[in-house]
Amino acid sequence: MVCGKKRVGEELRCKSCGSPFEIRTGFHYRENIEDNFPYIKNMISLGESETPIFHGDDFDLKLDYMLPTFSYKDRGSRILISHIADIRDSYGITRISEDSSGNAGASIAAYGSAAGLAVDIYVPETVAGRKFSQIQAYGANVIKVKGSREDVQSAAERSESFYASHVLRPEFRDGIRTLAYEIYRQYDRMPRNIYIPVSAGTLLLGLYSGLRHLMESGEIAEMPAIVAVQTEAVSPLCAKINGLNYDPDNKLSSIADALVSRKPVLLQKMYQVISEYGRCMTVSDDEIIEARNRLAKKGFLVEYSSATVYAAFRKKPQENSLLVLTGSGLKNDS
Amino acid sequence: MVCGKKRVGEELRCKSCGSPFEIRTGFHYRENIEDNFPYIKNMISLGESETPIFHGDDFDLKLDYMLPTFSYKDRGSRILISHIADIRDSYGITRISEDSSGNAGASIAAYGSAAGLAVDIYVPETVAGRKFSQIQAYGANVIKVKGSREDVQSAAERSESFYASHVLRPEFRDGIRTLAYEIYRQYDRMPRNIYIPVSAGTLLLGLYSGLRHLMESGEIAEMPAIVAVQTEAVSPLCAKINGLNYDPDNKLSSIADALVSRKPVLLQKMYQVISEYGRCMTVSDDEIIEARNRLAKKGFLVEYSSATVYAAFRKKPQENSLLVLTGSGLKNDS
Repeated sequence: MVCGKKRVGEELRCKSCGSPFEIRTGFHYRENIEDNFPYIKNMISLGESETPIFHGDDFDLKLDYMLPTFSYKDRGSRILISHIADIRDSYGITRISEDSSGNAGASIAAYGSAAGLAVDIYVPETVAGRKFSQIQAYGANVIKVKGSREDVQSAAERSESFYASHVLRPEFRDGIRTLAYEIYRQYDRMPRNIYIPVSAGTLLLGLYSGLRHLMESGEIAEMPAIVAVQTEAVSPLCAKINGLNYDPDNKLSSIADALVSRKPVLLQKMYQVISEYGRCMTVSDDEIIEARNRLAKKGFLVEYSSATVYAAFRKKPQENSLLVLTGSGLKNDS
Repeated sequence: MVCGKKRVGEELRCKSCGSPFEIRTGFHYRENIEDNFPYIKNMISLGESETPIFHGDDFDLKLDYMLPTFSYKDRGSRILISHIADIRDSYGITRISEDSSGNAGASIAAYGSAAGLAVDIYVPETVAGRKFSQIQAYGANVIKVKGSREDVQSAAERSESFYASHVLRPEFRDGIRTLAYEIYRQYDRMPRNIYIPVSAGTLLLGLYSGLRHLMESGEIAEMPAIVAVQTEAVSPLCAKINGLNYDPDNKLSSIADALVSRKPVLLQKMYQVISEYGRCMTVSDDEIIEARNRLAKKGFLVEYSSATVYAAFRKKPQENSLLVLTGSGLKNDS
């Protein structure tokens, strides 16, 4: 929360300031990655393993789609759903809801079903075909909602189910810390720049939280620069960072269909992090398509939303850069 | 080869007996997996890592689709394409061809492109949409061929390009040995039964070759039983093992679109292995669909061809079983 108040139960927003909560790490970084989530009693597993690093000539790639549902979201879902399973009896939870344009929905559906929960995923009418069928395959009930992205969220939140929001529930973002820990373990010396795509902010804030934990634990001496990448069509963070005008009601769309948050509730926090530790870049659809094709010809098939980081790198290459590839290319319809 | 003659160059078939060659391991198993391929000078890498084992209550799963192109075929392609890249200058190779119904094509396309080779993939007209687009994404030239599976092979073999057949070239099958090594490293005690889907036989013979190497090196004391699974529609190995009649010209099709080899050239060798070390089971489309849905609800989305192993396990569960899941569910059209 922004105002510093403590969370008392499972509420989504601080009653004083209205903002989502944040989990603090008040202990030294622990070698066994799972031990860094002491609030989880039973950790659900779908066979996650450390995602690979590819060391290229000019840049490195973190293949973060090598996770159970083929996107990095599994890092967050694993922790959030393990937490919900821990508290299910106390709270009488049998059914959960979530809103998503695709990857988070598939991930919550897989972990939710595996935990024995009924899962309702609310999606925009425009959801991509493959993502829709992936969510369904995990046994979730998929509900298409007309209107804006906010209308989809509101439908999921208003439902009778326990709202397992990947944006508002702090456990999801907190689960992304594992990305920072893995990078730390995989390098003798941390990369100087880490490129990530940014939409709602869970990846950015979760990665930052893990890096900060490593800093506070004395494991790393300085923070890598975080290069936040957005599309020209949906760029609220870059606009804020660069002092540009951004109209969240513009109807431009992008081929990067996972990067759709026009009014991210976590914007202020993202702004603070990137102002201090990084920078923000936008890329065009043409640049994204070109980047995706080039990565595929190198053998890495990623979804368009993931190719944004390579598009940004190509515009201004920097030595010692790690590009986080977040979603498999098999998730795109073409 | 069947007759025992040595291969002198890069020929596909033994000039005496006509059968494909086989690579022998005349050295002790080596801890570093890559060192078990001493004939490779420069090993290509696309960020492969050990694929995860999921330990379930009743059975274990080897998530062997957690590889660069989302199928186990990458184990073979990596070795075959590394070998071709090693000899390219001596043989003047700039372009390769391959025939495939999908997964092998995508895998050869990715590794071939990454090695800087031009790649032609010949596919049956009936190739599934997603597999077709995956092959294309890696920059390969995809050629649809009318007629039987044999017609597709013949078109690829007759082309001007270096024919990088995953069935006939021994380096591909040999690359599958890594599966056996990984399983060995991931268990204190080897599982008693290993379930695999069987079509052309590369997985079966490669796995067997790795297990035999571990036996001959004294690393394991006995061979696990290999449970070969085929569809009711395409079951030449099961028919031969069980002394049943099988008409390779029948036109039955199966939802398991990766298991299409009606007249596998490696049938005799497969027969020898399974007669001695395992058994063969067939499963119906209904059983495959049910198995796929059940696996997905546990959080594991696999393609229908992969779900065959769980379908077989469900028909006759055995303790101490490892099921090898070979292809991601994102590869199916629905």
